[in-house]
Amino acid sequence: MEKKQVEAITARDVDFAQWFTDVVKKAELIDYSSVKGMFILRPYGYAIWENMQAVLDAEFKKLGHENVYMPMLIPESLLQKEKDHVEGFAPECAWVTYGGSEKLEERLCIRPTSETLFCEHYANIIHSYRDLPKLYNQWCSVLRWEKTSRPFLRHREFLWQEGHTMHATAEEAMEETVRMLNCYADFCENVLAMPVVRGVKTEKEKFKGAEKTYTVECMMHDKKALQAGTSHYFGDGFAKAFGITFTDKNNQQAYPHQTSWGVSTRLIGGIIMTHGDDNGLILPPRIAPTQVMVIPVAQHKSGVLEAAGALRSRLANAGFRVKMDESEQSFGWKAAEYEMRGVPLRLEIGPKDMEKGQCCIARRDTGEKTFVPLDQVEETVGRLLDEVHQNMYDRAKQNLEDNTYEAQTLEEVKTIVNSKGGFVKTKWCGELACELKMKEEAGVSSRCMPLSQSGTEGVCPVCGKPCTTDIYWGVAY
Amino acid sequence: MEKKQVEAITARDVDFAQWFTDVVKKAELIDYSSVKGMFILRPYGYAIWENMQAVLDAEFKKLGHENVYMPMLIPESLLQKEKDHVEGFAPECAWVTYGGSEKLEERLCIRPTSETLFCEHYANIIHSYRDLPKLYNQWCSVLRWEKTSRPFLRHREFLWQEGHTMHATAEEAMEETVRMLNCYADFCENVLAMPVVRGVKTEKEKFKGAEKTYTVECMMHDKKALQAGTSHYFGDGFAKAFGITFTDKNNQQAYPHQTSWGVSTRLIGGIIMTHGDDNGLILPPRIAPTQVMVIPVAQHKSGVLEAAGALRSRLANAGFRVKMDESEQSFGWKAAEYEMRGVPLRLEIGPKDMEKGQCCIARRDTGEKTFVPLDQVEETVGRLLDEVHQNMYDRAKQNLEDNTYEAQTLEEVKTIVNSKGGFVKTKWCGELACELKMKEEAGVSSRCMPLSQSGTEGVCPVCGKPCTTDIYWGVAY
Repeated sequence: MEKKQVEAITARDVDFAQWFTDVVKKAELIDYSSVKGMFILRPYGYAIWENMQAVLDAEFKKLGHENVYMPMLIPESLLQKEKDHVEGFAPECAWVTYGGSEKLEERLCIRPTSETLFCEHYANIIHSYRDLPKLYNQWCSVLRWEKTSRPFLRHREFLWQEGHTMHATAEEAMEETVRMLNCYADFCENVLAMPVVRGVKTEKEKFKGAEKTYTVECMMHDKKALQAGTSHYFGDGFAKAFGITFTDKNNQQAYPHQTSWGVSTRLIGGIIMTHGDDNGLILPPRIAPTQVMVIPVAQHKSGVLEAAGALRSRLANAGFRVKMDESEQSFGWKAAEYEMRGVPLRLEIGPKDMEKGQCCIARRDTGEKTFVPLDQVEETVGRLLDEVHQNMYDRAKQNLEDNTYEAQTLEEVKTIVNSKGGFVKTKWCGELACELKMKEEAGVSSRCMPLSQSGTEGVCPVCGKPCTTDIYWGVAY
Repeated sequence: MEKKQVEAITARDVDFAQWFTDVVKKAELIDYSSVKGMFILRPYGYAIWENMQAVLDAEFKKLGHENVYMPMLIPESLLQKEKDHVEGFAPECAWVTYGGSEKLEERLCIRPTSETLFCEHYANIIHSYRDLPKLYNQWCSVLRWEKTSRPFLRHREFLWQEGHTMHATAEEAMEETVRMLNCYADFCENVLAMPVVRGVKTEKEKFKGAEKTYTVECMMHDKKALQAGTSHYFGDGFAKAFGITFTDKNNQQAYPHQTSWGVSTRLIGGIIMTHGDDNGLILPPRIAPTQVMVIPVAQHKSGVLEAAGALRSRLANAGFRVKMDESEQSFGWKAAEYEMRGVPLRLEIGPKDMEKGQCCIARRDTGEKTFVPLDQVEETVGRLLDEVHQNMYDRAKQNLEDNTYEAQTLEEVKTIVNSKGGFVKTKWCGELACELKMKEEAGVSSRCMPLSQSGTEGVCPVCGKPCTTDIYWGVAY
């Protein structure tokens, strides 16, 4: 039979963007469709999303949230009810103007996000304080007609979840906003092995229509920032715009306070760019579609396939996501293929191993190989998967720390940005003018004001005014 | 506090359509949105769909299928590639004509179904017999711009899954078509407690673009038919239209053979209309969001809440979906509310029960109450849930059998349809003219030619020609 070759990919440090595209294609995560900016999530890419969904959905439900499904189309008049919101989203809406052969009286946009739909529904179902809180979440796809696109990072259509909650008081809504921000941060760190900076967006960078936007920011291998998830506090602005009121405990009419929060398939882009190397993808074990790939060595020899199959079954029974490749491809091809696909552990067993009552387990993250007695396979795999996770997290954390710099002046910021890249931490006076000048002169946008503020005195690097607020700057995806 | 009343609903036999709408609203399954025909799936309705998804998705995966996600928009030129298909669907497409403020060069329709998108992708990724079979499935929403709409039964947008598979041979594809039909039939019967008739659609009723459409047909309480799921065999028609070819084992170019199959949230409509009664919904235990509702009796009395809570925890630990209502609503309100919501079992415990070391379990399907010693609660709940399922199935099966009639002549069919309703089984010669005349004169459409054919001789009730094919007729949703 023909021998397949696993083709080499561009090296990360030669052309990171090309490396990213190569990995996405070669690991069969995505394919292009005939509509620009709309991508096909192939089985391996979609399986990563399914595993993320399973973890997040369980977490949301544990926190009391319920899933719903809202229509995908929003009448133009409904979208226009909240002024800031429509200004932010209308320019990138896709508009339905015909139903069959009939021209619609009012055009409908495909949801870019569903605040307006949730608010319309909440106005129908919230009447009394007893109806609060409402803790709803939706898994769906949304559409934003962007000019440029890139697999996982910027799709015109992407899959996400959007939580939309309503609360009796501002305090409760603010608690929810921060709770969900922390939920995302913990998910990134404990499940995706992606360390985060938790913080608050500036007025300029916040979500259109929100009072306050919280964010988790991650650093990619190329030192650029990725906004991994956001959680918004709306106050009662939407409630007023949509006429949502309730009778409170003192029998007074009141407006509820609102949040929304979301993460998307963009996180898969984050995983690739945080962990991947020149041999391809490296998947965090907790969301890897296949955690262990069993490869029989010299599989034509007597008993090898049976021994390999027995290990596969044992690991499956122990609850691991495990597959076996008994195809006719060469061992070398298989090893390279599952490296490309980022499978955390490769388990090899051949005649010599069988004689010694052992198998060999290779780690994707370090390349390290261990010989494991057959009766210790389950236990070792469990331990190694945790070690792989921890090592991936530690490496990414090191990258974040090594490439985060402090600066006092605009000149220092510029020097750092031009010579090294990464995040720059400065003080900031809070003025939009200084934020804009930073972008113009140093080419960096504000990432966030970290939740853990030092409280020390300093000066704004742009205007020189004394101030205490810490802020992160960087180049973002 | 105010006493809430659970309002009565219309009786089934007074106005079945109104009863259905009442149940859907009162059980909080659905709400209306501002776009006609697009409905909101509320938490309780969506949770039923989630439970269905979990069972079906596991079943699909067991059969080797993988999930993917395709774009939601289809360029008009792509939709037009297969002639029968576009004729069937174009009249009910919603068309996107603007992206932001820019008029699109080619209009895009929101997917009414995704054969064309899958085929375009398959043309990219199928090259060799080694790439086959491709067994893909997608969970998504689709849009069909219908004139009339009804909760669950006919939405302009509805949630569904669509399987799309490609095979090296016609035989394999046909096996897959029947396999998935049986998968749906088993799901309806074993999970939803809905007995089905498995069969094949006539040419007139088959899916646009398919060679053969298999269907599972269920009978509702009002004796009308509901098409619960369909599985289509496409031959190589789409493959030819889309230029999908592969090199077979003999190194010849060949066209692969295709199937598609789907079920939707329509199944929830089927559940409501199969099982519900004048007190509301009755949910099949295997997909009920809450299988057991624990209601403390005289909950202000010492120890009652603790005892009820302990039972709730024990049942949750045993793997049942269980909730407790300790709100201040009256016992009567709670009992009526969870009847309306169709919770299969209600578990009550009060001071007297505690003295006797027992609790009381009431079945939703029969109203029967049993006193259960506290140490036998898990075991009894498990057994009762199975009994409820079986009883619901048996009742529905009885309804199907009692209301299926055989007829030899068109006059007999008319008499049955007019006086009794239900399914009528006749012979059929296979001519479209006779099928159309049956519709015109007796008001019934062909439901299916059952897979288990009697093989006996008879005559077509319309033209009188001798023939052997058995066929079912009925009025359908």
